[in-house]
Amino acid sequence: MNNIEERITALVDTLTSDYGKGRIIDEIKPFPHPDEDVLQDIISQLRSLVFPAHFRNKALKSYIVRNNTSMVLENIIYNLTEQIKRVLHYSPEFQSVSDDEIAEKSQELTFAFIEKIPKVREYIETDVQAAFEGDPAAFSKDEIIFSYPGLFAIFVNRIAHELHLLGVPMIPRIMTEYAHSKTGIDIHPGATIGKYFFIDHGTGIVIGETTVIGDYVKIYQGVTLGALSTRGGQALKNKKRHPTIEDNVTIYSGASILGGETVVGKNVVIGGNTFITKSVSSGARVSVKAQELNFRYGNEKPEKKDIEQDETWFYII
Amino acid sequence: MNNIEERITALVDTLTSDYGKGRIIDEIKPFPHPDEDVLQDIISQLRSLVFPAHFRNKALKSYIVRNNTSMVLENIIYNLTEQIKRVLHYSPEFQSVSDDEIAEKSQELTFAFIEKIPKVREYIETDVQAAFEGDPAAFSKDEIIFSYPGLFAIFVNRIAHELHLLGVPMIPRIMTEYAHSKTGIDIHPGATIGKYFFIDHGTGIVIGETTVIGDYVKIYQGVTLGALSTRGGQALKNKKRHPTIEDNVTIYSGASILGGETVVGKNVVIGGNTFITKSVSSGARVSVKAQELNFRYGNEKPEKKDIEQDETWFYII
Amino acid sequence: MNNIEERITALVDTLTSDYGKGRIIDEIKPFPHPDEDVLQDIISQLRSLVFPAHFRNKALKSYIVRNNTSMVLENIIYNLTEQIKRVLHYSPEFQSVSDDEIAEKSQELTFAFIEKIPKVREYIETDVQAAFEGDPAAFSKDEIIFSYPGLFAIFVNRIAHELHLLGVPMIPRIMTEYAHSKTGIDIHPGATIGKYFFIDHGTGIVIGETTVIGDYVKIYQGVTLGALSTRGGQALKNKKRHPTIEDNVTIYSGASILGGETVVGKNVVIGGNTFITKSVSSGARVSVKAQELNFRYGNEKPEKKDIEQDETWFYII
Repeated sequence: MNNIEERITALVDTLTSDYGKGRIIDEIKPFPHPDEDVLQDIISQLRSLVFPAHFRNKALKSYIVRNNTSMVLENIIYNLTEQIKRVLHYSPEFQSVSDDEIAEKSQELTFAFIEKIPKVREYIETDVQAAFEGDPAAFSKDEIIFSYPGLFAIFVNRIAHELHLLGVPMIPRIMTEYAHSKTGIDIHPGATIGKYFFIDHGTGIVIGETTVIGDYVKIYQGVTLGALSTRGGQALKNKKRHPTIEDNVTIYSGASILGGETVVGKNVVIGGNTFITKSVSSGARVSVKAQELNFRYGNEKPEKKDIEQDETWFYII
Repeated sequence: MNNIEERITALVDTLTSDYGKGRIIDEIKPFPHPDEDVLQDIISQLRSLVFPAHFRNKALKSYIVRNNTSMVLENIIYNLTEQIKRVLHYSPEFQSVSDDEIAEKSQELTFAFIEKIPKVREYIETDVQAAFEGDPAAFSKDEIIFSYPGLFAIFVNRIAHELHLLGVPMIPRIMTEYAHSKTGIDIHPGATIGKYFFIDHGTGIVIGETTVIGDYVKIYQGVTLGALSTRGGQALKNKKRHPTIEDNVTIYSGASILGGETVVGKNVVIGGNTFITKSVSSGARVSVKAQELNFRYGNEKPEKKDIEQDETWFYII
Repeated sequence: MNNIEERITALVDTLTSDYGKGRIIDEIKPFPHPDEDVLQDIISQLRSLVFPAHFRNKALKSYIVRNNTSMVLENIIYNLTEQIKRVLHYSPEFQSVSDDEIAEKSQELTFAFIEKIPKVREYIETDVQAAFEGDPAAFSKDEIIFSYPGLFAIFVNRIAHELHLLGVPMIPRIMTEYAHSKTGIDIHPGATIGKYFFIDHGTGIVIGETTVIGDYVKIYQGVTLGALSTRGGQALKNKKRHPTIEDNVTIYSGASILGGETVVGKNVVIGGNTFITKSVSSGARVSVKAQELNFRYGNEKPEKKDIEQDETWFYII
């Protein structure tokens, strides 16, 4: 037992001395960090606010919509103000600002954000419509609201995008990464997205920071709206690196559309697995030329020895 | 402070008036919605029922398997009946049915579902076998049960598929979307899947509503068993839009097999990244013709200026 | 009511008799299983230990770093020892070892693991640097630590890899599958990964058990470092089946690099969507030859009848 105590003490010594090496992972900031759990709870509260009929706060036992709304809202205002206060400390522009001013600014940002909720609701309503019209497997609009990961990712992105536009650092990205974790859909909060946006299935979608998307756009699983090579790293910050997708475009699964100067015009349909690095004029339909395939055997089971000989003929695990 | 009170009151006014616009996101139904948290708990209870040795309900302190089983089962029956009651309200056919009849029907559906558990267990046992035989990285069958996301996705699909066959709306999809969220594997509850089904890695897999899969089928990450263009939207509802995969087929990663009339015959092997829109006769092996690649430099590090000149030569971030 | 009791009793009978069929899913082991929830909590505690400034244990109200460290550490030692004890029972080599010896061995393994934490921290610091330098969308290094899924996946892999090297069964895989579930990034605990490793976006990445990765390697979403055909199944266990990636290699999204004898040399850049099954000499840059695309219409919206005629021209949902 004594032995264990000594060994633990020695390990604590090793670790605390390791903590003193002055690296980024050692640096203890003089202010509290944003809290992932609180931010996830804020997203959940915001979902009650945006979908009051579908995602009620179960902790609130109020029958009166007005009271319910007020309680959810006050909870959000209190917690979001506190979280914004924390992250403003990271902004270079707030380095020499007093705590009182930071607190005041945080509250202003929170109120300015809440004022955007009706606009977010207006857009989300159109997203629900687009999903219902676009998907033959949809049972009802309620099913879409309850279960479609694409709608959840779009909802979080619309929320995070408003915070991003207000200049709130870090929180928008923590929010969209939460949605990414739940859905496999990675939309940067900087991306600008029009009305009637529909994402089907969604896993593997990446939509970069400077992407601009019009109205009535449909996107399937595995689509990348990305940059061409970022070998420039931090030097490319704030430059338009991702494409522009105009109204009424459909992009089928696995397509990659790349580059800040690439514009996909109105009414375009992009076929699955295409690789687009130049602009596409409006109305065009683009698809991959038929893939050349090898066929072997067929209409009979191959001999075991043939399979062994072919061992490397079939790929990718 | 007073100022804040006024501002919050004004925001509550704005929101409650926004809620009155009569859109789908505003519509408060006269019955409670299905509860995501309860449904996730039901999945967890069902996991205890299907794998009594591996996922015991830790809250139950019973030594006696029979008592334990009964407690888990009663919990599921109580909660699932309540959830089914809620979703039946959404079915057009139950619009004019009394609450008592809905309650009775919900209980019948729950019992009918529980009776399928031995069949689900029979299939799941074969899935564990298939994973162990198919994956050289598997340490043991227990490891597969505890950690393989593919097995979890298949388990949830088998459960949800039984509810789907019984005609329960919405709940099956909420369940499979929960599995999708945890695993990146998106299997519609409508898909019919045979015994000895093995999914390796799994992220990005999409298996559509009307897919039919035989026995001894292996599928790797990124495979789509999908539809050709759904530009028909809701008009295509209930039509067979997804492929049929016969017994003993292996489909390597990134392959897409598409269309309701596409049949992949017995003993076929489909190579990675292939794109299949027509039927494949039994025994055939299909792969992409060798991809043409560009090679530059090699055996030496390129000059920095050459790299800059090539800036757009390498792709996709 | 009586009726219900009878029906439940009958279902319990059916299930308990189903449990007696002697299959793997029926087998009740004489020792407790590893506990997923406890292992997730251990990962969370380890995150506090590795990032003491960023992920403090909120339950601990200590101001003194040394005390805090000790409390977190003791918690990990207690719980991890218990979990290792459970999984050692599954190892063939511990079948005939006494419980006392297993307990002692478990504690030794836990201490040996904790001694690796400073090394893990040294590597993780370099991963944070690599992410900041590699990603123009990164606001700050703190944002990377708080929100980047790639960093989380690498952190869990580095932890799990140390446990894997110590020969602890099952726990490493349960840990990496937890990271896989949260991030869509599937790295086997056996994979060996150098310093300054950067994963961007990450969804769909698969890195196999026997992969070896050097320093300064960058990998994007959808990359597979995989095996060629595993039709050998369990016979291939412990054989090198996955590639070696040398220092300073960049692999863009969707590329597949396959096979145990495939070596990608230093300073290589692999373009998006390439399919590599042979070694690539150092300094080379590899990309897909320009894809052949079909373009139709353009600069005008196609007629509705033309679209209908083309129904199957655009693919993959």
